[in-house]
Amino acid sequence: MALNPDAVGKTGPPVERTWTDRDVMLYALGVGAGADDPLGPDLALTTENSKDIGLQVLPTYAILLGQGRITVDIGEFDPAMLVHGEQEIELHAPLPVTGTVRTTMRVAGMYDKGKAAVVALEVTAVDADADKPLFTSRMSLFIRGVGGFGDDRGDPARPPQEIPEREPDAVVTYTTRHDQALLYRLSGDRNPLHSDPAFAARAGFDRPILHGLCTYGYTGRALLAARCDGDPSRFGSMAGRFSRPVFPGDALTVKVWDLDDGAAAFRTENQAGDIVLDRGRFTPAR
Amino acid sequence: MALNPDAVGKTGPPVERTWTDRDVMLYALGVGAGADDPLGPDLALTTENSKDIGLQVLPTYAILLGQGRITVDIGEFDPAMLVHGEQEIELHAPLPVTGTVRTTMRVAGMYDKGKAAVVALEVTAVDADADKPLFTSRMSLFIRGVGGFGDDRGDPARPPQEIPEREPDAVVTYTTRHDQALLYRLSGDRNPLHSDPAFAARAGFDRPILHGLCTYGYTGRALLAARCDGDPSRFGSMAGRFSRPVFPGDALTVKVWDLDDGAAAFRTENQAGDIVLDRGRFTPAR
Repeated sequence: MALNPDAVGKTGPPVERTWTDRDVMLYALGVGAGADDPLGPDLALTTENSKDIGLQVLPTYAILLGQGRITVDIGEFDPAMLVHGEQEIELHAPLPVTGTVRTTMRVAGMYDKGKAAVVALEVTAVDADADKPLFTSRMSLFIRGVGGFGDDRGDPARPPQEIPEREPDAVVTYTTRHDQALLYRLSGDRNPLHSDPAFAARAGFDRPILHGLCTYGYTGRALLAARCDGDPSRFGSMAGRFSRPVFPGDALTVKVWDLDDGAAAFRTENQAGDIVLDRGRFTPAR
Repeated sequence: MALNPDAVGKTGPPVERTWTDRDVMLYALGVGAGADDPLGPDLALTTENSKDIGLQVLPTYAILLGQGRITVDIGEFDPAMLVHGEQEIELHAPLPVTGTVRTTMRVAGMYDKGKAAVVALEVTAVDADADKPLFTSRMSLFIRGVGGFGDDRGDPARPPQEIPEREPDAVVTYTTRHDQALLYRLSGDRNPLHSDPAFAARAGFDRPILHGLCTYGYTGRALLAARCDGDPSRFGSMAGRFSRPVFPGDALTVKVWDLDDGAAAFRTENQAGDIVLDRGRFTPAR
């Protein structure tokens, strides 16, 4: 098994995906919207009939719309050796409550980490109905067992966001539920690592772990509340690095630091203070 | 506005409906499966990958597969005046995890209650792939403002189940969540009475009420656990009468009395001891 460094720079065929308002609401509930105060402001994220503003789509839902199989031949690896390293989502327009995206995947880079490798993928999405850019999703995959190909290819990854040493400017805490993964997985990722105790045990966990992108979605909700006043049209981008597994039932505390350039740094910690999503950077919409 | 008593005995055109395992799992979570012990026996109801038995379908999901618009012209009435009175579901075979049903609705009866009327509907469902009977769903609709047509038509409704005076033989309690209706509604019934505080206020409620069929689903889960050892193939039928609204967050206690004929009587109470589903009758599969 070996990666194919020549894949760097190559682009896969376009893929179309359609979604409905039911998918949007299911995702919002999957990342905990409405759980603490089901009749409060989150009604705009969880139902189509709240007040006059209608259903709003969580910006992080774009990541799911951009996910799918890898459409470029990046070589061979053991899928069990792959972990999601970093994830960035950049919105070019608010997501419609129902629609179709046409996504294109590009292999942005491939980096030799010795025994492991990092593959950077960029997915560009166009609203297929309006034919206008909708979002860009960038992810890095950390794959053990396929390093050693000898050189780094492609654009260097953006330098990671530094987290200030001072106290955060905003703190938001949500508690996930013990059955959170059972709901979140209905948004698409049915990897049994997140639901099957026997499978999780074989992977070395006492019990199933929460989806990394579920933690990411909680974090996005916190940024939407703390830095966008709940308005998805004010959400520009977020990026962060997964650093530790989260278990269903964990509390997630998102700490936010405002930066001089108008952006914000953030990180997410569990109830023990362990960092689960690190080196986060949020930017408001332009 | 008046009902059309000549509709009694008439049958509407067949309607097909398709469902997937995602729908099945979403319904199970919507009626609280997995909430108390997400890694316990309910994994067979909420995920496709638990142990060797695979995904099991809650028998009460059949009611949703049998629901839809009224396909016979029963006359005119104000939909806001309609409440679900009684509901029976009879399984002829366990529901597959994915499939297509062909349902046919018959107007079984129409009864003059003075100012109101009761319309009894029977939906017969056939597995469209296997071409064999799957379930029969019987419901009575209580409609205010359209009584007085002067006579009762059709088969008399089955006499209601008497509830024994003695202590129940089994008691199961589940607590619904404050956001239960937000999840349950994604299984199809998006009536804002269950999610929109302003709409609920116009209907005379302090806050949105839970779907009656959500309460019914919790009750079916209790019967499945208490009288079928969790095995849907042992579930024959259940019938009950809605008697009082349930609010999201309420605790539901299902009391079961075994009867001499092998059936069981049941009723469901809220945390105050008020009866919310009454005169229940459960029968095991033959």
